[in-house]
Amino acid sequence: MADDVESKLTEMNIEAKEEEESEDFVDPWTVASSSVKGVDYDKLIVKFGCNKLDQDLLDRMEKIIGKPVHHFLRRGIFFAHRELKMVLDMYESGKPFYLYTGRGPSSEAMHLGHLIPFIMTKWLQDAFDVPLVIQMTDDEKFLWKDLTSDEARRLADENMKDIIAMGFDPEKTFIFSDFEHMGQSEAFYRTVVNTQKLVTFNQVKGIFGFTESDSIGKIAFPAVQATPAFSCAFPEIFNNRKDVPCLIPCAIDQDPYFRMTRDVAPRMGALKPSTMYSVFFPALQGSQSKMSASDPNSSIFLTDTNAQIKNKINKYAFSGGGATVEEHKANGGDCDIDVSFQYLRFFLEDDERLEQIRKDYSSGELLTGYLKKELIGILQKIVSEQQKRRAEVTDETIKLFTTPRKLKYDY
Amino acid sequence: MADDVESKLTEMNIEAKEEEESEDFVDPWTVASSSVKGVDYDKLIVKFGCNKLDQDLLDRMEKIIGKPVHHFLRRGIFFAHRELKMVLDMYESGKPFYLYTGRGPSSEAMHLGHLIPFIMTKWLQDAFDVPLVIQMTDDEKFLWKDLTSDEARRLADENMKDIIAMGFDPEKTFIFSDFEHMGQSEAFYRTVVNTQKLVTFNQVKGIFGFTESDSIGKIAFPAVQATPAFSCAFPEIFNNRKDVPCLIPCAIDQDPYFRMTRDVAPRMGALKPSTMYSVFFPALQGSQSKMSASDPNSSIFLTDTNAQIKNKINKYAFSGGGATVEEHKANGGDCDIDVSFQYLRFFLEDDERLEQIRKDYSSGELLTGYLKKELIGILQKIVSEQQKRRAEVTDETIKLFTTPRKLKYDY
Repeated sequence: MADDVESKLTEMNIEAKEEEESEDFVDPWTVASSSVKGVDYDKLIVKFGCNKLDQDLLDRMEKIIGKPVHHFLRRGIFFAHRELKMVLDMYESGKPFYLYTGRGPSSEAMHLGHLIPFIMTKWLQDAFDVPLVIQMTDDEKFLWKDLTSDEARRLADENMKDIIAMGFDPEKTFIFSDFEHMGQSEAFYRTVVNTQKLVTFNQVKGIFGFTESDSIGKIAFPAVQATPAFSCAFPEIFNNRKDVPCLIPCAIDQDPYFRMTRDVAPRMGALKPSTMYSVFFPALQGSQSKMSASDPNSSIFLTDTNAQIKNKINKYAFSGGGATVEEHKANGGDCDIDVSFQYLRFFLEDDERLEQIRKDYSSGELLTGYLKKELIGILQKIVSEQQKRRAEVTDETIKLFTTPRKLKYDY
Repeated sequence: MADDVESKLTEMNIEAKEEEESEDFVDPWTVASSSVKGVDYDKLIVKFGCNKLDQDLLDRMEKIIGKPVHHFLRRGIFFAHRELKMVLDMYESGKPFYLYTGRGPSSEAMHLGHLIPFIMTKWLQDAFDVPLVIQMTDDEKFLWKDLTSDEARRLADENMKDIIAMGFDPEKTFIFSDFEHMGQSEAFYRTVVNTQKLVTFNQVKGIFGFTESDSIGKIAFPAVQATPAFSCAFPEIFNNRKDVPCLIPCAIDQDPYFRMTRDVAPRMGALKPSTMYSVFFPALQGSQSKMSASDPNSSIFLTDTNAQIKNKINKYAFSGGGATVEEHKANGGDCDIDVSFQYLRFFLEDDERLEQIRKDYSSGELLTGYLKKELIGILQKIVSEQQKRRAEVTDETIKLFTTPRKLKYDY
C-alpha cells in the first residue's frame, strides 16, 4: 500500500518554471505538484470524485464516540472520504465495520510520513473498538522494485515490528504479509481471483496508467490490494460473514485502488468499502521535494537518534520565515510553507498551543528557531518512545498479531 | 491445463468451403482445422517452433528404460517435443527429472480425450520411476467460464478422483487444486509472482492473443500454469532443490504456456522445462467436429455404461468406409478419417493387430462394423475398469495424493 514517499513528491522545479499553471499529478506511485505549497487538495477531491470530510461528519463521529475526534481530523490532515456516512450509519444501527490499512515495505526504516495512516487507524480502532487488518504488500514491492522476494518479505517483517509497536490491540488486529498470507488462506486467494475476474486491462489502464509494457504482475496486483476490503477474504476473522462493512484510512494517493475496489464490490455481492484520506506528509525540504529512503536527510526516520533529529530539523527543515530577523519581524513567517510548522500541525496535539504558534509565527513575533526547538522536542519524544516500544516487540508478539484467527469481536 | 475439447475442434465446414487452403488455428482455447483429416501437425510443429519426436529419440528412450516405448510414442500420438533430449541426458547422468501435467476441470465427467496426457504420464512415471505433480486449474476455469469458484473447486475434486483412479504412484504423486494449493504454499505463490514479474502484457498478448478487454485474471493466469514447471515452487517435494529438471506431457495446444515458461526460466535462474506434445483426440463425428461436454454424443465419457458406449460408437462414430458394401469392397476404407480406426490407434495396444486391421480396412476386406465391434469391446473394458477403480478411491486416498509432502525420491 502507501508507496514510499521517495517516489511521491517529485521535484517539479523545472516543470513549474515551464508551466506555472500545470496540474498536480497524483497516483499511487507519483505525487507531483508545481506549487510551493504542494498539492491542491480541493482540486484533487474534484478530480478523484471523492468527498470533503466536513464538519457535519466530524460532529457525527463525536456524537457516536462521545469524545472529540483526533487532531488529524480536526485539522484536515484527514480531509476527504468516500461514503464515511454509510459506515457510521451502520455502526449506529449495530452493524460495526472493520478497519483496513496497509504498507508497502520498500525500506527497512520507516519514516514519520509512514506513521500517519497508522496513527489515524489506531485512534479509530480505539474510538470505535473494532477489528483491524493490516496488509504488508511485499508482493507489490517485489513487483515494482529491484528486490528479491526474500528481501521484500524481510522488509515486511521489519516494518511489522514498527507497526505493532504503535500499540494496536492484539486481540483485534491481524497483520499479514501478502506473500505469507496468500500461502495460508484459500479464501484470500479466491477473493483475489474473484476480483481479477471482474476487472479488465482497459480498466486498470484507465485507473492506474498501466501500459502494455508493464508486467502482468503489476497489472494483476490491484486485485490483491482490493481483497482485504472484502470480509469474505477473511472467513476465520469474521466468522464467514461476507457483509461486514470496511473502512480504509490511507493517504489519498491510494484512492485509485479503492475506486476500483468499490466498482467491483457490488458485482461480487459485497459491500463497497468506505475510505478516509489524508494529505501527504511533506519532506524536510518542503512540499515540493521528495522524501527518499536513499536520502536520510529528507525525513526523520524511526531509527534516528535524538542528535540526528535535532541536526536534521535545524539543518534541513525548510523555513517559511524571513531571510533576516528584521525582515521576519516586519513581514512574519508563512506557516503554509514552513516545514517545522507543518510538522507541528501533524504532531503537536495541543490545539491552542498550535494556534498560538501559528499566530505568533505569522506575525513575525516567533522566529523559525523557536518552532524548530519545539518540534525537535516533540519528535525526539515520539521517536524514542517508538524505539522503546519496538525493542519490546518479541517474536511471540509478532506471532500473535500475524496468526490468522477469529478477532475478538461479535458480529 | 488441457482445456475441454468442447472448445477445441470447432466446426469448420462452412469455412472449409469458403477457403480450402485456410490455415489451422490452435491455441489453448480453440483448435480449428479446415481439413477433414484435422490439424496438419507437421505444419503446426513448424509454426510453433517445436521439434518432431523422431525415431532417434524413441530409440534413446528405449535404451535408457530397457523396454519398448508406449504405443502413443510408437504411433506418433505424442509426436512433438521441446528439448526432450536434455532431460534424457540429465537422467542418464544421474539427475532425474520430475513430470508435470494437469487438467482444467470444466466438467464433472471426463471423456476419453482427457485421459490421453494422463495415460502417457503414468507410463512415463512407471518407466522412469520419477515424481509427478498434477495441477488442477480450477482458478483458470473460474476465470474463463461462467462458474462460481465453489463450483470450479468441486469439479477439480471430482476430476481428481478419475485421475487418481488411473493408478499413479501415491508415494510419488502430488495432485493439487490451484485454489487450494495457492492457499497452502507461500513458495508456490512466490513463484507465481516471480513469473508474473518477468512477463509483460505485450508478451501474453503475442503468445495468447489476449486483448485489452480481457480480465486481469486471464492476463495474469499463464504464470500460474507456468509455476509447477519450476521445482522451487515445491520446496517440500524437492527438498528445497531449485534445479530439478521438469518434463511436461500434454496436448500441443498447451505449447504457448510452456513457450512462455521456457522464456522466463533462465531469467528466474531456473531450468527450462522440457515438453512432449500429443495430437488431439477426435470427436466421434470426426476430426472436424467438436467434442462437447454439453453434447453427450460427441464423445465417450468415463461415466458411460456399456450400452451407451455401444450405442454411441455404432450410431455416431464417423465412418471412413464406402457408402455401400459394394463401394467399400471396391475402394476400401479411409483409416485417416475413420473415427473407429482412429480410436483403435489410441486404445488397441497390439501393434500387429492394429496394422492388420489397417490393411484389411484399407483394402475393403473389413467393414466399418467390424472396427466398431472391436472398438466397443476395448472401450467398454477401459471405461468399466476405470469406473471400478474410481469407485475405490476413498477420501483417505484423495488426502494422500493431495497433501503437500516430500515425494519418495532422492535428489
